[in-house]
Amino acid sequence: MGRLTGGDPSLLRRINSAVVLHALRAAAPPAAPTLTDLTKATGLSRPTVEGVVEGLMEAGLVVEAPAEEGEARRQGRPARRFRFRVEAGHLMGIEIGPHRIAALMADLGGRVTGSASLEVPETASADERLGCVRVAVADLLERSGVPRSRLRAVGVASPGIVEADGTVRLGTALPGWTGLPLGERLQRSFRCPVLVENDANAAVVAEHWKGVATGSDDVVFVLAGLSPGAGSLIGGRLHRGYGGAAGEIGALHLLGREATPEEVLSTTGEPLHPLDEAQVAQVFALAREGDERAAEAVGRFIRRLVHDVAALVLALDPELVVVGGWAAGLDGVLEPLRAELARYCLRPPKVALSLLGEAAVATGALRLALDHVEEQLFAVDSPH
Amino acid sequence: MGRLTGGDPSLLRRINSAVVLHALRAAAPPAAPTLTDLTKATGLSRPTVEGVVEGLMEAGLVVEAPAEEGEARRQGRPARRFRFRVEAGHLMGIEIGPHRIAALMADLGGRVTGSASLEVPETASADERLGCVRVAVADLLERSGVPRSRLRAVGVASPGIVEADGTVRLGTALPGWTGLPLGERLQRSFRCPVLVENDANAAVVAEHWKGVATGSDDVVFVLAGLSPGAGSLIGGRLHRGYGGAAGEIGALHLLGREATPEEVLSTTGEPLHPLDEAQVAQVFALAREGDERAAEAVGRFIRRLVHDVAALVLALDPELVVVGGWAAGLDGVLEPLRAELARYCLRPPKVALSLLGEAAVATGALRLALDHVEEQLFAVDSPH
Repeated sequence: MGRLTGGDPSLLRRINSAVVLHALRAAAPPAAPTLTDLTKATGLSRPTVEGVVEGLMEAGLVVEAPAEEGEARRQGRPARRFRFRVEAGHLMGIEIGPHRIAALMADLGGRVTGSASLEVPETASADERLGCVRVAVADLLERSGVPRSRLRAVGVASPGIVEADGTVRLGTALPGWTGLPLGERLQRSFRCPVLVENDANAAVVAEHWKGVATGSDDVVFVLAGLSPGAGSLIGGRLHRGYGGAAGEIGALHLLGREATPEEVLSTTGEPLHPLDEAQVAQVFALAREGDERAAEAVGRFIRRLVHDVAALVLALDPELVVVGGWAAGLDGVLEPLRAELARYCLRPPKVALSLLGEAAVATGALRLALDHVEEQLFAVDSPH
Repeated sequence: MGRLTGGDPSLLRRINSAVVLHALRAAAPPAAPTLTDLTKATGLSRPTVEGVVEGLMEAGLVVEAPAEEGEARRQGRPARRFRFRVEAGHLMGIEIGPHRIAALMADLGGRVTGSASLEVPETASADERLGCVRVAVADLLERSGVPRSRLRAVGVASPGIVEADGTVRLGTALPGWTGLPLGERLQRSFRCPVLVENDANAAVVAEHWKGVATGSDDVVFVLAGLSPGAGSLIGGRLHRGYGGAAGEIGALHLLGREATPEEVLSTTGEPLHPLDEAQVAQVFALAREGDERAAEAVGRFIRRLVHDVAALVLALDPELVVVGGWAAGLDGVLEPLRAELARYCLRPPKVALSLLGEAAVATGALRLALDHVEEQLFAVDSPH
């Protein structure tokens, strides 16, 4: 309210541009709207719409669409039609994980047009890991035939608590990650903005965009792992917390002075190696085959996860909890989680497995890049 | 964005009214602004400001202020000055607690002009408790000399999970509270809107308005008690949760199959009576006097509270945690809480005692009533 000052002509122009661009993007292809359609859809005057469309064409964001065939035959001179140029730029979403780099490419409409992935040893140093990122990016750009200069924004997601400036405040899951100025390091490879986000935060954005949570604005995504993390949407918006550490429930069990997850999942008494997912998968597999010690270990692990998730649910009261992360073994978590939540919550949240699976984190990073571009295109609030 | 449709004249009028009203309210008394001042402050044209001010005067919200003395002498005919009429209506904030009804009266500027309170037996039925509310309200109105018809909004806060329509979905702290259509029942006593809220939610709003949290928009208020509850502000807005149950951490200890708080605080092995605050205060007092059993019980209780709060902090990552509720014994909670949070949080939140103390819940209810009135006065988003 403090910013309302009555007729600001440049603000009005930006509002009008945004309104027309929205109407153009909302028009379902292949139906490209005419100026008359846009006038009706926006409530703006015809001269205003004409002026805005000219400006958007000059900016390369809008192009005249070919007339529809039937129409061309019926009339001597069909009305001009326009469409938003989703090909006016490209976006990239990158996941930097303990074992894998994954990258997705998309157009300005958010449609994925290509992908690349690369295995990384879990012991790789930060420099080596960033080197792998550069290789995956170069590979994806080349195979897509997209010049690097056409990228409008790049989203990056990794484990750890990420500061607003893209620095990793704490990231114990990847060697050399704590304190790494990740945004600044990656920025050197791109001329467009690079946005860095925590992996669980990216995943919840992805499931809301294209996954199991499209119907809900109040979602907790639990990235199950030896140190579980969570990302939350509240009213459709990412909740990062004051210091970017919201959902870092991995420390919760420490409060009770309980064993670490690596001890919980052990079948020998010796704790597992923190990042050894293969070893974890083996415990889950043994449990399925009926191995008693493995089944006990998995049971302990599930109880731990259920407790952590329940704490999140009591604090946040979401509509939906999405469980993702490890590809294997998670289906065994759903039923105990539902039962436990039903016991302690008045209106227990729905519980679902991630729909995007391994693609969730990179997809979320892509969505964050798209959000950034859309904010620039459609921002009418205040220029930054 | 979807609502932007270009020139809507009635919307424009409402925006202009809101802008002028804001400028009038922002002017620090006794300096009442002139039309020239308002034109400068709002950026609107003089005729627009004149028209808006006339309309606001007709609505009884604005009145001409007497000319300043010095000015009157200097000039033959001083410029007219205007002020917002904070006395144009009244607000009430009511706390319905286990032992006490408390009510506050305020003007449209949020200045408290009167208060009333009434002891209630903890065993009172819902009807008896609501009867006490009516007595306290009538008493406060009469002593304030304010006719009931001048109330613009009433805020009510009580323990329990409150639905959007003012029904208590669950309220174990007060007899007969679960399922009570509290908003509907109280609405019969008032012609203005009655807004019902959970007590911890009201308390966090109050501390943000006039208490220890005025400098922070990311706050968790912990209403300590045998069954602790919490209210959270995220980005300055109340976070109620999808089902209104956010922060109901009282169930958290059940997950670990631990003892109830009444057992935790017992010094005899027999659990305390759930709502007997006198008994609780006695345990705290004995502990201060050096009684070993009492000290152990208090220690157990504090560890429990610290654990519950830590779970909230890990989930939400607030800037500030405010501890309130019981008048006595809470100062012993601060240091263990700070120490525990420092161990597990990277950037531990600040921890502070409630500044408003016993007045927090009623003050928050009052603020919610004021919010409602301000939304009506200043709303430019969409008419409801």
